[in-house]
Amino acid sequence: MARRPLPGEFELIAQYFAPLAASAPGAAGLTDDVAVLGVAAGEELVLKADAIVGGVHFLPTDPPDLVARKLLRVNLSDLAGKGARPLGYLMTCALPKDLEVDWIEGFVAGLAADQREFAIPLLGGDTTATPGPVTLSATVLGAVAKGRVPRRGAARAGDAVLVSGTLGDGAFGLDVQRKEFAAIDGAARAYLINRYRLPQPRLDLGRALVEAGILHASMDVSDGLVADLGHICRTSAVGARIEWTRLPLSPPARALVAAEPALRERVVSGGDDYELLLTVAPEQIATALGIAAGQGVPLTEIGRIVAGAGVEVLDETGVQIPIGRTGFRHF
Amino acid sequence: MARRPLPGEFELIAQYFAPLAASAPGAAGLTDDVAVLGVAAGEELVLKADAIVGGVHFLPTDPPDLVARKLLRVNLSDLAGKGARPLGYLMTCALPKDLEVDWIEGFVAGLAADQREFAIPLLGGDTTATPGPVTLSATVLGAVAKGRVPRRGAARAGDAVLVSGTLGDGAFGLDVQRKEFAAIDGAARAYLINRYRLPQPRLDLGRALVEAGILHASMDVSDGLVADLGHICRTSAVGARIEWTRLPLSPPARALVAAEPALRERVVSGGDDYELLLTVAPEQIATALGIAAGQGVPLTEIGRIVAGAGVEVLDETGVQIPIGRTGFRHF
Repeated sequence: MARRPLPGEFELIAQYFAPLAASAPGAAGLTDDVAVLGVAAGEELVLKADAIVGGVHFLPTDPPDLVARKLLRVNLSDLAGKGARPLGYLMTCALPKDLEVDWIEGFVAGLAADQREFAIPLLGGDTTATPGPVTLSATVLGAVAKGRVPRRGAARAGDAVLVSGTLGDGAFGLDVQRKEFAAIDGAARAYLINRYRLPQPRLDLGRALVEAGILHASMDVSDGLVADLGHICRTSAVGARIEWTRLPLSPPARALVAAEPALRERVVSGGDDYELLLTVAPEQIATALGIAAGQGVPLTEIGRIVAGAGVEVLDETGVQIPIGRTGFRHF
Repeated sequence: MARRPLPGEFELIAQYFAPLAASAPGAAGLTDDVAVLGVAAGEELVLKADAIVGGVHFLPTDPPDLVARKLLRVNLSDLAGKGARPLGYLMTCALPKDLEVDWIEGFVAGLAADQREFAIPLLGGDTTATPGPVTLSATVLGAVAKGRVPRRGAARAGDAVLVSGTLGDGAFGLDVQRKEFAAIDGAARAYLINRYRLPQPRLDLGRALVEAGILHASMDVSDGLVADLGHICRTSAVGARIEWTRLPLSPPARALVAAEPALRERVVSGGDDYELLLTVAPEQIATALGIAAGQGVPLTEIGRIVAGAGVEVLDETGVQIPIGRTGFRHF
């Protein structure tokens, strides 16, 4: 097939990126230097910026539409953890000069799909050349009622710890692309890979829980349960005790762990879950579970916040499961 | 001297970036997933994102404090062009694993200096590794009274075209680092290099002009006068006629052009000016000039908006100065 090089910078913006901004009047069709965005009275902004790099966060052979959707979704998941309503995003793209236009077309199609799904427009950004790999940065903006953003430091001893969805799928979705696992079949493998590639930000659940005013600490799980709950504990000056048997696992994840019990550590420290992790006072557990059930989203009590420090995960006999260094580090 | 490698990712954030967020309560010391930012009633947000790449926008040997300050200033200049009051910024950094900590220390010192100068805190961001060059992306947020952002498309035939400061210094500042020019001495050379490396966003002037309510179109000149005025003309469906003899040039730029008249094209198309470019009705010229004079900032009428299309630059005999392809393009 003939190589299709990138068009000029202005054509790239006009042809591919401007349509992504069409639904945002304040983006002015990307024909101005800045975007303008109103914030409703009584609301404040929630902001999150993330960068992803070819060869680090995704591979050149990964489908570009999924790269785009994951870029948006990991940021939207942070907004979900704070109960924010997404308003839009800005994006900068550093692109190798020899990138083919097919990649951009797939990337833009992925952005368009998720913009529809989550009702967020592109507000602005910048496109530049790079001698390095594709490097993408997104800043996502959301809104929350003033003073209602649940912070990491608000967990209290005695709180219940709850998590949405299932844990470990994202990490196993990465693993099964690198290695064969006899314990699962092709359908299970595809399920896990999809969970890795296309996280599901729990925006509606996050918003409903914040609006109910029952959350203490809240965030999304992206670095793994133990690392992220560790962040909550450190910032709140408390500890946490998690019961392994209560952790919500999908059938494929459960099959993998049954065949290889050492994989329990991977479930709680692998990361890429993009589920909600929150703490509520014990008397609010039923309300939280009811809100989640009303949305058809699994929400599970997995343990308690305790006085002290650190995160323990106890097995069915009450013995602590050993966890190594947790959370991905770039350096 | 012993090599000093980067510390771990969390240490990098805690040691170097968190202090930059200390003055923003909504940044929570960079210990949470998101930043929170209030917007005053009656104001709306102005947003701008830009990326800069090592080897493209700056050299590995450039002083890292100046790289940092230019990253902030090119974005602040866009805010200045819209009369916005800066609120803060988010930043993502993709860093090579072999980057030395000295570079980060210089970079952070530059950010700190300009945060003080422009009263903007770091609100949040992300740090990641890259196999490519240092790649930095900043999203800067500002506020303007609702409905008052001057857009590119608001120029009208008959408007006067005004520009702040002097033109061409930035482009010449780049040139003199690559080539000797006999027409200027070392002090002039240093002046031009400083103008290239450390642009001066005209925030106070932009705000005062927007508050006065006299601007039609307004933006900053970053791609060169002809390219940026061309953007205004295209979006406004008008043309522009500029008189070369009225263009404000610094003494070093004037000396270079006197010695080599072909450099006139460089003045109007070289870019990196980061001055304000605006149009006002003729009866508002005096008000605009008065506001600028009150601030001690040069503001000069350089021509008129006309019916038609395109930007002409006429020399002292009324003949059009030929301008080639204008504005830097990455692809």
